[in-house]
Amino acid sequence: MPASGATVEHPRESIDLPIEPEGVDLFLSAPDKKSHGEFLQRVQQMLLDHAFQSTHRESKVARYVEPERLKEIMDLDLKREPSSMEALIGHIRDTMKYSVNTGHPFFVNQLFSSLDPYGLAGGWVTDSLNPSVYTYEVSPVFSLMEEAVLKEMRTIVGFTEGDGIFSPGGSIANGYAINCARFNKMPQIKEKGLHGLPRLVLFTSEDAHYSIKKMAALQGIGSDNVYLVKTEANGKMDVRDLRAQVEKSLEEGAVPFMVSATAGTTVLGAYDPIEEIHEVCKDHGMWLHVDAAWGGGALVSKKYRHLLRGIEKSDSVTWNPHKMLAAPQQCSTFLTKHTKILSQCHSAQAQYLFQKDKFYDTSYDTGDKHIQCGRRADVFKFWLMWKAKGTDGLEKHVDRVFDSAEYFTEKIRGRPGFKLFVERPECTNVTFWYVPPSLLGKESEPDFNQKLHKVAPLMKERMMREGTMMMTYQPLREHPNFFRLVIQNSSLNHNDMDYIVAEIERLGRNL
Amino acid sequence: MPASGATVEHPRESIDLPIEPEGVDLFLSAPDKKSHGEFLQRVQQMLLDHAFQSTHRESKVARYVEPERLKEIMDLDLKREPSSMEALIGHIRDTMKYSVNTGHPFFVNQLFSSLDPYGLAGGWVTDSLNPSVYTYEVSPVFSLMEEAVLKEMRTIVGFTEGDGIFSPGGSIANGYAINCARFNKMPQIKEKGLHGLPRLVLFTSEDAHYSIKKMAALQGIGSDNVYLVKTEANGKMDVRDLRAQVEKSLEEGAVPFMVSATAGTTVLGAYDPIEEIHEVCKDHGMWLHVDAAWGGGALVSKKYRHLLRGIEKSDSVTWNPHKMLAAPQQCSTFLTKHTKILSQCHSAQAQYLFQKDKFYDTSYDTGDKHIQCGRRADVFKFWLMWKAKGTDGLEKHVDRVFDSAEYFTEKIRGRPGFKLFVERPECTNVTFWYVPPSLLGKESEPDFNQKLHKVAPLMKERMMREGTMMMTYQPLREHPNFFRLVIQNSSLNHNDMDYIVAEIERLGRNL
Repeated sequence: MPASGATVEHPRESIDLPIEPEGVDLFLSAPDKKSHGEFLQRVQQMLLDHAFQSTHRESKVARYVEPERLKEIMDLDLKREPSSMEALIGHIRDTMKYSVNTGHPFFVNQLFSSLDPYGLAGGWVTDSLNPSVYTYEVSPVFSLMEEAVLKEMRTIVGFTEGDGIFSPGGSIANGYAINCARFNKMPQIKEKGLHGLPRLVLFTSEDAHYSIKKMAALQGIGSDNVYLVKTEANGKMDVRDLRAQVEKSLEEGAVPFMVSATAGTTVLGAYDPIEEIHEVCKDHGMWLHVDAAWGGGALVSKKYRHLLRGIEKSDSVTWNPHKMLAAPQQCSTFLTKHTKILSQCHSAQAQYLFQKDKFYDTSYDTGDKHIQCGRRADVFKFWLMWKAKGTDGLEKHVDRVFDSAEYFTEKIRGRPGFKLFVERPECTNVTFWYVPPSLLGKESEPDFNQKLHKVAPLMKERMMREGTMMMTYQPLREHPNFFRLVIQNSSLNHNDMDYIVAEIERLGRNL
Repeated sequence: MPASGATVEHPRESIDLPIEPEGVDLFLSAPDKKSHGEFLQRVQQMLLDHAFQSTHRESKVARYVEPERLKEIMDLDLKREPSSMEALIGHIRDTMKYSVNTGHPFFVNQLFSSLDPYGLAGGWVTDSLNPSVYTYEVSPVFSLMEEAVLKEMRTIVGFTEGDGIFSPGGSIANGYAINCARFNKMPQIKEKGLHGLPRLVLFTSEDAHYSIKKMAALQGIGSDNVYLVKTEANGKMDVRDLRAQVEKSLEEGAVPFMVSATAGTTVLGAYDPIEEIHEVCKDHGMWLHVDAAWGGGALVSKKYRHLLRGIEKSDSVTWNPHKMLAAPQQCSTFLTKHTKILSQCHSAQAQYLFQKDKFYDTSYDTGDKHIQCGRRADVFKFWLMWKAKGTDGLEKHVDRVFDSAEYFTEKIRGRPGFKLFVERPECTNVTFWYVPPSLLGKESEPDFNQKLHKVAPLMKERMMREGTMMMTYQPLREHPNFFRLVIQNSSLNHNDMDYIVAEIERLGRNL
């Protein structure tokens, strides 16, 4: 027996591999060259073609079909019998044809968009390796890569030490924040639960993402115990109201334990004043979380990182590279300045997975910090993008999307038919009403808002059916429906902004 | 203006696309043919080669390198400057080289393995479309596909009606179960939280997955309020002890609200007796959840579905196609027979995303049932596999992995040096000690268990360093470390089982 560590070429002649005849191996779970090579190659060619076509301005953003009709076209039902290779290729073609091209330049509908070629390649590689990131043993490369990316992101935030994890989306990352904040206040909750404890209360603005309430409900705190703080007209948290609500909760005998500030609100793109909120947290011993899922990307820009001034004073941060930094869905992180809390708060020390008698340094087995067990590697696509572009490239990307939003804002400011919701947008969200010709000049009529409320849904229907653009709309508080343009795609330029303005006018001209 | 619904070819001459000169476009977020086509094609060829090589029996399962050394090799740090294309190709090559080949036939280490070619193609397609599944508007195909897959899975479980969602792993799916069960008992918890309520208690076996405790901690119930029910020698829940513990909780003044039975425990592969547990739940008004994350695959087999007898009487089920059915990581579902509870329990009705004044039937906007907002489409890879193989193919796959496990069990039964932990394994987990030559016949010596405990870690180190196989070990309760072979790869055959036995003997022969 050679010494441990040596490579041995031992005989394997006993393993005679029966090559399955073509056509009967559909139930096998490892590709063979004969019958799967052709299939995989054909799919790869389709993907390459699609990557270029679907991001081309001359192509459609989407090919809208009603749900019932799409069910017929797609033949979605699952049957007992296998399908032929041609049928499978057809299914893939239909899936591509009827899916929305989220990489298209005129998909400005969500807080994610674009199709980054390095991110795409990274995703393909990840699929091919099919990892689950919980132990160094099973995911050596991705475990270390997560450490490197999270460390660099913490450095950019301004945390000199700390910890971090990848999360399946910003909502769950915000849930991690709630759990850490709660554990920090009352560590016994992990074992004993909330039973018999005073009522816990946390604070976030009325414009914060809905996940704060959703996760508070899941975590047994209750959505009513998320106190919503008023915002100013531009969507920033009103810190005087925060102070008042904290006082109120104390008078009620509750325990205020956390504020979730937002850096880039979902609709208006507002950045809450982190430094002022930090003062309130300090005064009342509350955990300061910053939900920078969307607006965190600005941190890589010398020009725009002032928007998050004070973030280094926070206890934790949600930051999704799949949003402003345009990594593929899904790439979401939770960062904290506290070095041990993620382990303390979440670990369950399962003996079958996190054995302590392994032969390597098990501090690299980071899985127990998570609430997930099996977990996809969301890191590689972002790491590869970052390597490809460098931090300089990420900065140029961010500066360019801000530039597009600023150009668009100035273009529609004062333009007939356009009315900005936020006069001076802070992020790349540009929110505005389009007032069609038939309503222009009728702003004082009593049913104006009621009529304006119906304009955006109608225009959205038209852009969907024609496939020329996708941009979302929403109401907010007492305000009627308005549009939100939102930009994370740095291949967009001023000409594209001109196109979007012209397209809005075209879609609404006879309303 | 043509009628809504028509396709218009309107002029786009104003959009003059400046083609960026090669080399300066690294920060753009849409692929262009000139500089990215070559890169993506090279990556595709590498992936194709890797898919075949990494699943070949003559290749290594892993190429183990110590963490500190791997950090040096991989150049993981992120820099300000961009990288060249050659450097990126090198990074991808290294990532493949040093990652574990989880698709290799001799990766029998976890509850997932293999590399299904249809699943792989499905993953690549999903990456290329970069969807987020929350609204029909943004993900028409995947929204309908999820509905079709979840419906068919519910049918196979035996639920005549109900609902379901995809989840980022079985742990969070079990958390969904806890939340539904709790909401079912006391719906006010969603808004009001657990404050002021009696202590809630749930039950699962001592061999159940650690996620039950982890999620109970996250959800404010507290890990101590997960009462662990004793198991019998083969790992099945002892229903008399369950009854006793429920009684005990009632005497304590607590509110028992849920039992989580396991169908295929993580280590021993035991199937809890669902029908008997259902009787206890009925008697005490408790929600019956079945964590079939691992063992649920047996449901597609006429020969093995009896293992889950009574599952149709449960309230909810966790079932991960990425485990026994060998879909790629990650593909995990939560199914329930209750039609409305997922919406009631989780919805937050965000107005910016789930607008009710859309032009289509918004019942297809299923995102609000989830705790995630943005969410990857995990459905397509599994749907494509299922289409490719048919349910018949899935059944053959399951029958084959059971056959391999049974062959292995009989091969080692009574073989010198091997001792089965569970004499008659129910699932494809085969658990056993390997007693090396130096310890054979010394079973009655006082330090035998202590010495045996060290054998599996040493053999694991050897197999990792040589890359010939990966199989896990763990202790359980008072028992010393033992091996767990676990099979989800239907390309494994009897010869492979012979190889694994021979390899174990080779690795342990001088211990």
